[in-house]
Amino acid sequence: MSSVDVKARMNAIGVLKEKFKIILDQIQRGEKPILVMPKRVLSNTIYDEKNKMLLLGPDVLRRSLIDVNEARKFMQTLLMASIIYEALVNNEYPTIRDLYYRGKHSIGYRDVDGKMVHENTWDEQKESDSVIRDLEVFMNVLREEMLILSKEKGKVVGNLVIRSGDDTIDLSKMGHGAYSIEPTPDLVEFKDVDAEYVLVVEKDAVFQQLHRYGFWRKYRAILVTSAGQPDRATRRFVRRLNEELKLPVYVLTDSDPYGFYIYSVFKIGSITLSYESERLATPNARFIGVSMTDVFGDEVFRKVLDEVKEVGGFTRTTLGKLKKKPYLSESERRNYVIKAKQRDVERAVELVGYDVADKCVESSELRSKLKKKEGLTGYPWFRTPDWVRELCIFFKTLNKLEIEAMASKGLKFLADTYIPSKIEGGDWID
Amino acid sequence: MSSVDVKARMNAIGVLKEKFKIILDQIQRGEKPILVMPKRVLSNTIYDEKNKMLLLGPDVLRRSLIDVNEARKFMQTLLMASIIYEALVNNEYPTIRDLYYRGKHSIGYRDVDGKMVHENTWDEQKESDSVIRDLEVFMNVLREEMLILSKEKGKVVGNLVIRSGDDTIDLSKMGHGAYSIEPTPDLVEFKDVDAEYVLVVEKDAVFQQLHRYGFWRKYRAILVTSAGQPDRATRRFVRRLNEELKLPVYVLTDSDPYGFYIYSVFKIGSITLSYESERLATPNARFIGVSMTDVFGDEVFRKVLDEVKEVGGFTRTTLGKLKKKPYLSESERRNYVIKAKQRDVERAVELVGYDVADKCVESSELRSKLKKKEGLTGYPWFRTPDWVRELCIFFKTLNKLEIEAMASKGLKFLADTYIPSKIEGGDWID
Repeated sequence: MSSVDVKARMNAIGVLKEKFKIILDQIQRGEKPILVMPKRVLSNTIYDEKNKMLLLGPDVLRRSLIDVNEARKFMQTLLMASIIYEALVNNEYPTIRDLYYRGKHSIGYRDVDGKMVHENTWDEQKESDSVIRDLEVFMNVLREEMLILSKEKGKVVGNLVIRSGDDTIDLSKMGHGAYSIEPTPDLVEFKDVDAEYVLVVEKDAVFQQLHRYGFWRKYRAILVTSAGQPDRATRRFVRRLNEELKLPVYVLTDSDPYGFYIYSVFKIGSITLSYESERLATPNARFIGVSMTDVFGDEVFRKVLDEVKEVGGFTRTTLGKLKKKPYLSESERRNYVIKAKQRDVERAVELVGYDVADKCVESSELRSKLKKKEGLTGYPWFRTPDWVRELCIFFKTLNKLEIEAMASKGLKFLADTYIPSKIEGGDWID
Repeated sequence: MSSVDVKARMNAIGVLKEKFKIILDQIQRGEKPILVMPKRVLSNTIYDEKNKMLLLGPDVLRRSLIDVNEARKFMQTLLMASIIYEALVNNEYPTIRDLYYRGKHSIGYRDVDGKMVHENTWDEQKESDSVIRDLEVFMNVLREEMLILSKEKGKVVGNLVIRSGDDTIDLSKMGHGAYSIEPTPDLVEFKDVDAEYVLVVEKDAVFQQLHRYGFWRKYRAILVTSAGQPDRATRRFVRRLNEELKLPVYVLTDSDPYGFYIYSVFKIGSITLSYESERLATPNARFIGVSMTDVFGDEVFRKVLDEVKEVGGFTRTTLGKLKKKPYLSESERRNYVIKAKQRDVERAVELVGYDVADKCVESSELRSKLKKKEGLTGYPWFRTPDWVRELCIFFKTLNKLEIEAMASKGLKFLADTYIPSKIEGGDWID
């Protein structure tokens, strides 16, 4: 076992002991055992506009053993804590899936009538996962810090030397392959870096292309891929590159609501998991594309504004100049764009709110289909002039575009024209 | 660009020129241009029982320009060949997705009545992908050898030093992370190895656990994960480890029909893509588990045999001794097994054939649901005593088990008891 792991184990064991000593003290004092922890609910989630961060609010919940409504949850929490403790002292590396199995069993007891009854500790993994989240919040540690492992998709290459486990690894010497980020990225030590920025690419295949082309060497970038929806380790790794190495982070995704959402997960996190976002999100990550204006320019949105005067609270005046040219010619656009699916449109409404869809969607049939989403007001960080414009163009055209379409204009175009001009020209969304 | 890439480019360009010179010669001789290539269809797929390999049979198809039924396919083939050629000479690294975009456009022409008509080169990626496969078969090169990249999930760690691109990489020095296999694994050079076998783990999370535990160091193994369904590069990499380094390959998956299928993809490949299996499959890969007999022992199957005397053509006599003990206790089994879903059962019928399900499934209701699969005779390589027994136990119990359940008995159990005892005891399925 590596020395960093030994240290991490000691830390986690210390926090567990300290935090659960409370229960012991309560019992010794003859009090009812109660766990007090921040409430992990939407109503207790605050978007800190200034720091662009999701935070847990001040509400707490009390989980008591002597309360029929809470006894089960109380016991689950203690069961999970003890399983994690056991794993830590036994030099284990559990996954959330096997923690579920480790704790899964039936407890037999006699009810008030003396009849034998069996109750399961938990039935489904979502129950045990929820308890792990409670513990993360209660102890203010991430599960990774308790050496709970998980599958990990993120990869990285670039002029960066790290120390992981007992090895020193030069991420510029990976050949045509790449370095798979470890599931416990807080244990990585950054030894040496020679880079100007971090480029995070949604798609693994595009990462492979840029890597092979030598993009990161030429432009002194750290090249990362999340291979789709980013997992926790990739998000934490990117956050640390930004926070500790002071490298700006640019995110490159498909031009569709799912791509925009992936960017949002890197930048802000998930609204229902705000506690983890405090550590995993990169609030100043920038979206460099592919944007709808890269595909369509500003013409589409200008026309909408001429008709409706105001979208999402923004007018011609509050939006400033609109004179961006697209990166694609008329015929390229015709060949490359893909028709949006219903789920794309619905995801877009979730991001920016129903009112923007209502203003920008042309078809009254589609609009009536979206009525069920009428209550949605969108995420605050998508209610900005830039994103309202982006999503309005999406609603108007009902088109999307993949990064691969940009690469099909030639990898040189993607690597030497599109990405550098977006970054150097400051043509990103913050 | 690395020197191996330059060399690979030259090779591919050479083969393309040579193969398509045929067309040029035909035209110069005043003949009709015709491409002749092996037929990529099920009826032309042969399972070579002795070498445990899927091979393309002797049937060929002739694709002629001067035939209204074939002109479109002929043109598509030439279009794709020219796009790949352009990419090769321009130092590009396309993906199959951007090859689709590169070729996608409308061709305008006047029909017999002088009316302008437009036809698309191709509409969906499955069309352009199919043409790429045709080219692989026609030229007898894999797309990876034409430097066509793709996303890549496979990872590896162990006492293996490779050369990739211009770098020499020690796969025992990856810290807690891992080495991501490159999309062009034929360009990897094996420099030095100190290992006794290759362990391929289906699940990335279990790979992470075994890696962190130091499994590969302790047991001198090369540890690979396919992270689910294996992609081509992972399969080719594993095949090369087996073929060139003479390392036995053991595959560890969930105990369910999908896990068995993943093993089958490593070992034999996909029956509809036999031409790639010749290069990507590892015919002597061994399935070490988790097997149904590891979970249930032999008792279940013995009972079935007592009742029906014969399953899948096998009797007590042809099956030999049945006295295996399970690795799980009665109560562990109760806590860990998961109920099979309908799609698991259907997949199992595909693997082993309807007759085995018919013999082993207890519920007449389920059996009637499976009637639509009645015609299925199973894959020849699953019609062996060992696999018939495995799948019969599955049909009988309708249970499955994940590897994580084994890990939940303690990582030490998985790493130091289960895996070594399976390998040392020869308790695998070949």
